[in-house]
Amino acid sequence: MSNHPPLGFTFAGVPCRLKKTGAADFALIASDRPCAAAAVFTRNKFAAAPVIYDRALVTEHPAGLRAVAINSGCANACTGDAGLADAATMAAEVEVVLGLPARSCAVMSTGVIGVRLDMSKIAAGVRLAAPQLAAEGWDAASRAIMTTDTRPKVAFRELAPPGREAGGVRLFGMAKGAGMIHPNMATMLSTIITDAAIEPAALDALLREAVEVSFNSVTVDGDTSTNDTVLVLANGASGRKLEAGSSELSTFASALTSLCTDLAQQIARDGEGATKFITVRVEGAASDADARAAAKAVANSPLVKTAFYGGDANWGRILAAVGYSGADVDPARADLWIAAGRGEVTSPLQLVRSGQPLAYSEEVAGAIFAEKEIVVEVRLGLGDGQATVWTCDLSHEYVDINGHYRT
Amino acid sequence: MSNHPPLGFTFAGVPCRLKKTGAADFALIASDRPCAAAAVFTRNKFAAAPVIYDRALVTEHPAGLRAVAINSGCANACTGDAGLADAATMAAEVEVVLGLPARSCAVMSTGVIGVRLDMSKIAAGVRLAAPQLAAEGWDAASRAIMTTDTRPKVAFRELAPPGREAGGVRLFGMAKGAGMIHPNMATMLSTIITDAAIEPAALDALLREAVEVSFNSVTVDGDTSTNDTVLVLANGASGRKLEAGSSELSTFASALTSLCTDLAQQIARDGEGATKFITVRVEGAASDADARAAAKAVANSPLVKTAFYGGDANWGRILAAVGYSGADVDPARADLWIAAGRGEVTSPLQLVRSGQPLAYSEEVAGAIFAEKEIVVEVRLGLGDGQATVWTCDLSHEYVDINGHYRT
Repeated sequence: MSNHPPLGFTFAGVPCRLKKTGAADFALIASDRPCAAAAVFTRNKFAAAPVIYDRALVTEHPAGLRAVAINSGCANACTGDAGLADAATMAAEVEVVLGLPARSCAVMSTGVIGVRLDMSKIAAGVRLAAPQLAAEGWDAASRAIMTTDTRPKVAFRELAPPGREAGGVRLFGMAKGAGMIHPNMATMLSTIITDAAIEPAALDALLREAVEVSFNSVTVDGDTSTNDTVLVLANGASGRKLEAGSSELSTFASALTSLCTDLAQQIARDGEGATKFITVRVEGAASDADARAAAKAVANSPLVKTAFYGGDANWGRILAAVGYSGADVDPARADLWIAAGRGEVTSPLQLVRSGQPLAYSEEVAGAIFAEKEIVVEVRLGLGDGQATVWTCDLSHEYVDINGHYRT
Repeated sequence: MSNHPPLGFTFAGVPCRLKKTGAADFALIASDRPCAAAAVFTRNKFAAAPVIYDRALVTEHPAGLRAVAINSGCANACTGDAGLADAATMAAEVEVVLGLPARSCAVMSTGVIGVRLDMSKIAAGVRLAAPQLAAEGWDAASRAIMTTDTRPKVAFRELAPPGREAGGVRLFGMAKGAGMIHPNMATMLSTIITDAAIEPAALDALLREAVEVSFNSVTVDGDTSTNDTVLVLANGASGRKLEAGSSELSTFASALTSLCTDLAQQIARDGEGATKFITVRVEGAASDADARAAAKAVANSPLVKTAFYGGDANWGRILAAVGYSGADVDPARADLWIAAGRGEVTSPLQLVRSGQPLAYSEEVAGAIFAEKEIVVEVRLGLGDGQATVWTCDLSHEYVDINGHYRT
């Protein structure tokens, strides 16, 4: 897979001293022409100022965005009207320095809650970043949005629509995650850009579909953040217009979902303190909603997650979590399988059949629980509902990181 | 408060080798006459065999119970029809050895899920415990039901109804908790006994009211167990009959609620790996249900709990949890206070007013977060809804305990 970002976009990532460490903490992405925009935001009722700002911006100017500015080190959340003014000032700084129209820059923030943004540092960040904007700046930008992330998260996709000869459409996405990760949504900021031309309404529909099975299917600790944002910008620089109902558009939709899934899985893999990547699948539920509820309960259970961390095949906790998830369950029909791996598994081990433990080998089960990538599959035997959720284990390091996050 | 258990009850706690350590793991409580009985059980759909057994037993014989047998070391959960037969056999063993009528003994189990009870060990436990039954055996019984509990949990209440001269009514309760603790209900077994005479229907109503504000208001890790049971037995040995609608009955109701609250708080204090006791109060919610949802979200948030463990005054996480709880919230009306202590607090510190941080002293806030007992109070400013939930912090020890529970 090539690492060429979409045409017409430039990137920068610089330090502006919001982080005490001096690490990069300000990212800028700019487009050389207006972009169609769509976004999905946190449902947390204490939505942060940049979320409130962007929600209005994307509604007002769904075809006129030119840039995104993102800072780490301070979430600008629970900061009231002053915080909202700060978000607007941050956007305006970018627009002025880059010579863009008013109300064409989106903003995102991540970091500590309840602290005002230091606007002189933000202004310095904008002035430092602007001259560094470059097509190859995506790596620096993806690093500048990290908080407790141990590594940057980026993904590329490229598609050449069938029957065409010219260059294809490109997608690039970057995300930060790590903690406070939970569906609806994760503490998670993600910006996705493409050089396809797509109508804002179509882009919005595709993004919502993609987010549901990707970012909304990953959980680290069950905490939903105040700042979660997934923003997608399409600038049309490839010259390809994806018409509603076309096969090109559905190919693009698949690529967008694949890219979002890739980023979401990177977030789970890099969950705070994570040592293992866990895929929880529920099949045979009475409905997809039931399957999601059951899968999320398993993925969020501290008891299940510590058992994975300890490599202890304490599978009863998995069924217990399904049992309190709210999903319809008939214990006499429930089966449980585990396997090493992440996607298609080759040698699953069945632990429970019809709600009762099988005489499986503890040695084999223990070996699977000791793996770094584990699939848990619950089959409820009630219907066609299914869901997949990704998560990580709960380790000592999670407690370390979150016991002293601000220090 | 006197440590005299109710009249007519005897207790024993013995080792029957279900626990690898050889510690006591079988408890027996017997009454010299039939008891009115009421119980509240887990809502987990993988309800364990003893839960299924007792649910039917209490429904069939609400005025005829004579004994309770409780083992630790094995939960007899996810064990199917064979497990249900084992629960019935355990009850029958007690009835035979103690010479009680059939279907007069309740059973409870706690420990690892998915493993059959070793019935020869249970039988040995019954035979060892029966001759040791004694009024002063309550301490031994309360120790035999412990799993990861670090100490036994018991509570006594005594009430002399106004205007009476003779001895009053006594209540005794014992509980085990520690992990997989969550409302509806905790992994938690509790047996409460009294020598009052009360109709089963009245007892049932009082127990449900008491459980809602006590056991259902404590959470350790958000996991709801397969085995949770609170059973209350009233044998009437005091000679006092508490009539429906009498002031004596309401005095008894208060004592029962106080006893259940006492046990529930002991469970939170002894949560797995707990180093702190946290009281979360929500006031001014649109409804009591909203207040409970918000308080539970705060109490269950791994981010909030690790911040308490680390003594880090990262209060933004508290508001973030309220924000995703589902409760109605108007950020501009939300206030947040913290204080050292557990009940009435004397010097609360306000951190947030109308959704915005105040210029409070970090030193004072840090000192409160460093306390062993902390009260968090969120005032939503929307109505009269209120709730209180107790919990503990999330520590390294929690991860240790649950990473290797079975080993």
